Amino acid sequence: MLKFGLLGAGRIGYTHAVAINALSNASIAAVFDPVDEAAARIQDMSGASRASVDDIMADGAIDAVIIATPTNLHADQIEMAARAGKAIFCEKPIDLDVKRVRACLDVVAETNTQLMVGFNRRFDANFVNVRKQINNGAIGTVEMVQITSRDPSPPPVEYIKVSGGLFRDMMIHDFDMARFLLGEEITEVSATGSVLVDPAIGEAGDVDSAVATLKTASGKIAIISNSRRATYGYDQRVEVHGSKGMVCAENMRSTTVTVANEQGYTAEPLMDFFMERYAEAYKNELGCFVKSVLENNTITPDGNDGLKALELADAALISLQTGETVTLT
Amino acid sequence: MLKFGLLGAGRIGYTHAVAINALSNASIAAVFDPVDEAAARIQDMSGASRASVDDIMADGAIDAVIIATPTNLHADQIEMAARAGKAIFCEKPIDLDVKRVRACLDVVAETNTQLMVGFNRRFDANFVNVRKQINNGAIGTVEMVQITSRDPSPPPVEYIKVSGGLFRDMMIHDFDMARFLLGEEITEVSATGSVLVDPAIGEAGDVDSAVATLKTASGKIAIISNSRRATYGYDQRVEVHGSKGMVCAENMRSTTVTVANEQGYTAEPLMDFFMERYAEAYKNELGCFVKSVLENNTITPDGNDGLKALELADAALISLQTGETVTLT
Amino acid sequence: MLKFGLLGAGRIGYTHAVAINALSNASIAAVFDPVDEAAARIQDMSGASRASVDDIMADGAIDAVIIATPTNLHADQIEMAARAGKAIFCEKPIDLDVKRVRACLDVVAETNTQLMVGFNRRFDANFVNVRKQINNGAIGTVEMVQITSRDPSPPPVEYIKVSGGLFRDMMIHDFDMARFLLGEEITEVSATGSVLVDPAIGEAGDVDSAVATLKTASGKIAIISNSRRATYGYDQRVEVHGSKGMVCAENMRSTTVTVANEQGYTAEPLMDFFMERYAEAYKNELGCFVKSVLENNTITPDGNDGLKALELADAALISLQTGETVTLT
Amino acid sequence: MLKFGLLGAGRIGYTHAVAINALSNASIAAVFDPVDEAAARIQDMSGASRASVDDIMADGAIDAVIIATPTNLHADQIEMAARAGKAIFCEKPIDLDVKRVRACLDVVAETNTQLMVGFNRRFDANFVNVRKQINNGAIGTVEMVQITSRDPSPPPVEYIKVSGGLFRDMMIHDFDMARFLLGEEITEVSATGSVLVDPAIGEAGDVDSAVATLKTASGKIAIISNSRRATYGYDQRVEVHGSKGMVCAENMRSTTVTVANEQGYTAEPLMDFFMERYAEAYKNELGCFVKSVLENNTITPDGNDGLKALELADAALISLQTGETVTLT
Repeated sequence: MLKFGLLGAGRIGYTHAVAINALSNASIAAVFDPVDEAAARIQDMSGASRASVDDIMADGAIDAVIIATPTNLHADQIEMAARAGKAIFCEKPIDLDVKRVRACLDVVAETNTQLMVGFNRRFDANFVNVRKQINNGAIGTVEMVQITSRDPSPPPVEYIKVSGGLFRDMMIHDFDMARFLLGEEITEVSATGSVLVDPAIGEAGDVDSAVATLKTASGKIAIISNSRRATYGYDQRVEVHGSKGMVCAENMRSTTVTVANEQGYTAEPLMDFFMERYAEAYKNELGCFVKSVLENNTITPDGNDGLKALELADAALISLQTGETVTLT
Repeated sequence: MLKFGLLGAGRIGYTHAVAINALSNASIAAVFDPVDEAAARIQDMSGASRASVDDIMADGAIDAVIIATPTNLHADQIEMAARAGKAIFCEKPIDLDVKRVRACLDVVAETNTQLMVGFNRRFDANFVNVRKQINNGAIGTVEMVQITSRDPSPPPVEYIKVSGGLFRDMMIHDFDMARFLLGEEITEVSATGSVLVDPAIGEAGDVDSAVATLKTASGKIAIISNSRRATYGYDQRVEVHGSKGMVCAENMRSTTVTVANEQGYTAEPLMDFFMERYAEAYKNELGCFVKSVLENNTITPDGNDGLKALELADAALISLQTGETVTLT
Repeated sequence: MLKFGLLGAGRIGYTHAVAINALSNASIAAVFDPVDEAAARIQDMSGASRASVDDIMADGAIDAVIIATPTNLHADQIEMAARAGKAIFCEKPIDLDVKRVRACLDVVAETNTQLMVGFNRRFDANFVNVRKQINNGAIGTVEMVQITSRDPSPPPVEYIKVSGGLFRDMMIHDFDMARFLLGEEITEVSATGSVLVDPAIGEAGDVDSAVATLKTASGKIAIISNSRRATYGYDQRVEVHGSKGMVCAENMRSTTVTVANEQGYTAEPLMDFFMERYAEAYKNELGCFVKSVLENNTITPDGNDGLKALELADAALISLQTGETVTLT
Repeated sequence: MLKFGLLGAGRIGYTHAVAINALSNASIAAVFDPVDEAAARIQDMSGASRASVDDIMADGAIDAVIIATPTNLHADQIEMAARAGKAIFCEKPIDLDVKRVRACLDVVAETNTQLMVGFNRRFDANFVNVRKQINNGAIGTVEMVQITSRDPSPPPVEYIKVSGGLFRDMMIHDFDMARFLLGEEITEVSATGSVLVDPAIGEAGDVDSAVATLKTASGKIAIISNSRRATYGYDQRVEVHGSKGMVCAENMRSTTVTVANEQGYTAEPLMDFFMERYAEAYKNELGCFVKSVLENNTITPDGNDGLKALELADAALISLQTGETVTLT
């Protein structure tokens, strides 16, 4: 039985608490959130006590923490938890500054801490299956990856301003997916972007539509396209081409219903909320974390995966600004 | 908060207990099952006490029962529960004998009991959406319904022998679905069947492949095809044709992954277990029952729906034997 | 080089003439049609001379005839052509009266004439491929066939009155397709039908919506559903279930385009005209006929196939009227 | 009636001749090809006379030429035909050297000649429909275009060496498609590529896998991915995202047949030959050219379209070599 301290009981913290609650080998023992209602909701569901961050770190009965606080607190809380000997599940990103991430990961390494970074898409049944097909040799050697990722609508501009920008906030998931599917480190990044959805995003210094091209040392290529708008729902697809074939994952739908009439054949729009689309992935993610900690297995995706994705985002941003391909060392 | 007594803790009883457990407005208070391990599993999960059927019926703190015992006990237990003033969720069928069902429903009526019969497919998101499209007028007036329902593989012949036969055991779900989608009572039944999958099923006096044609007073037609075998998984589809168009629900898959190579484009087989395919439907079903009881709403599908489906199964069996269309009064 | 006399230059006669014209090993030498414009159109296209039916039959340079005249002339013209030693391609049906068909086929047999009956769907690439998959063992032994065939809209009631009724006019194609796919003769027929589309069709003594269930001696089952209306286009699908799997042919579309927006994902309606849907099949059909005649091969579908389909239509009509399953000898 | 001189009777010249032959308003009057068999095949089919290039240019009865000779002859023959007052259909590319193309187009302009460049995909029913949906406002303002174009297998290395390289030989079609779908000129090009399919292609100085990112002045983005290998057939897809939705064209297949068994649901591979895939497009293309010339309409795609696509290919090649985004003026 793994006892958790939950740091941050907002939307995503609550999602993780529900996942923990459904597990027979884990529980939420304590919850921290400055907002009373948020903390109370977790307490009602799980019987957790309410505590401060320091209390949680000091509580020897707590084995692990879930860090679901605002991004700017992640790195500090990871370091605290690492020094307190707790296993850590942290929402991505660790930090928006690569240097801060590296320093934080040094502490994780020194303390020999188990750390998972929350790239939830790696736990989606579709993408897991794509990876499995690749591993089984179904498409031979991977050559090219295409990732399409489009949000239903942009977040508030106030969020955009503190988000680190599209590459660090949104495409970071796709950078991780590209690494997951390519199976080889990326050495070159080229990116471009535009403001097509909302001028206010441009005024905030960000883009809302972007494309990145990635390349590995052996010449494998990945292309990612992102948009902050998709009227037909949350569009999440990958396709991987290899020497012997292709494997792809199409979008999920709530139902398989089609209506046909004089206008044609119509299927419903896609789910339009990432927490609905990835509901099962969030559960699988926490289940995998708990199992890995209890069995002392290697954890994936770990801090290094979080760092690599951020480095790719930074490289993409430089490429956008300079028009040049950025080489990663 | 609705407190349940669970009668029968086998595979389907356990499924219902899990569904109840996940609800915030219901709980399993007591469980009856002659098998220690089965009862214990429910107790561990829910904190229920173990009890006899009589105990459960006599316990004034228990509001409702789930009847998931063998079929031959259903009618008696419904009557007991009805007289004890409990709301009842009963697995289909109420009984294999129409007369016994009618007598049982008389008791339900006299005691003014809330009874739901477990036609789980009515709670599947796909079929619910099909019904919703019809209600919304998307296809005009319903004219023809086509239902395809094929099991991955036949049950053991020992089960076949006590099952009541394909029409009462398997196609009964489709008879209910036909009624659900037609929106009008069926007045004529014609059916045929063959032994194509396993000669032992024929020796047991049953068929393993069958087709039924149903007709309503206004001339609407439904056709149902069943087989006890489908190598590609559990095949469950409906399509409804109306004066203005068509609405259909295709099969569900675990993932949306396709592999393409020299042999073509291949998607995975269908889920091959009904409890996996209808996992969400089972949850929705109990959730709906609990809500209906707590709010004192009309319950659907009710005892009459169970009776009607059985009458259609009996008529189909007669048609199979005589080669004649059977008229229902 | 096969020289044809074309009897009847209406819509379907013209289609066949175009197909012949595109072949390098056949030509239209003479055309008969009482309508000047119809005959002239063929002459312009092919350089054919205009002739009477008698002229064509007497012309020793003409090797074969295409009979595309009104149905009531088919049997007489087949007999004339058979006695004149010509190979015959005749549009279905040979006649609406089974006795007349049998007498006609006696003449065909006595004269050892090559006769193809125009069941064009057997030459559609999709259904040919379905048959090929069956022959290749892809689905094991055939067990159940499902055929859906729905016209975009009903023909004029004047046509309905002389058509022989839905079973002989429309479902006859599906009876032939069932025989083509089952690979075994049908021994039992059960059918039902309704007037749901147009009351005038009912007043003309016909139905506009119908279902038939067919069974072979070994117990294989076929179900056919027909409607005279489908707002979404000309709906033509088959699926065949066997001991090892299933093979199906979905509808054809003019394009693969989908539009996605807030209302969902929409593909265009189906083609809504049978001559567009089966354009390639008509070409393949005549090409196959020409090749078979030139190489003196056995011709399929032949007169017996035309007879069998008509017998099934008659049996279906009796079953509709009596509510009983009709056994074929 | 438009009379053609056909220059070059190889594979593509023959295809165009077949298309002309099927038209009622055009014919092949003369054919030039140094290979006897090639010329004879055209003569047999169309009754054309055999002639030299000079004869064709000098023949006042010839209204138009089809230039289907090797690429290095295109520009000279366009100029000859332009000066001879003939309408011109020329296979792409006009030349591999942008300067030569510009000089050639100057002659076309001076002589006021009607010139179509053979970007056949603009005449494919799918892509035509995509463009039509955009024109009809189905997706609002175009924002992002994704084009996937993968050949079944690479051409011989000897061809690669004279082809001008992947960007000028293969992706040039996609550059034209991007322009066709974006509806706005491209101002920035970034590209990368790898040798993943055949090292001999790399030794010949070319790549076999490549990606290009294009951008317009208003910020619209197009991404193109190409590979010289696709085991599952000739992969040709586009999707266009706009402010109000998305429109896409999926691959075409020969049939709609699916086989389902224990391994899953399998549809056939794609057609694997571009001339089969685009058979109808080639016919539409010539039909459109003939109509445009006879009615003296503006011709699209014209010489400028050929030039623009080549400029994009050159820009992509520079970007591949420098790692920098290339700005077009």
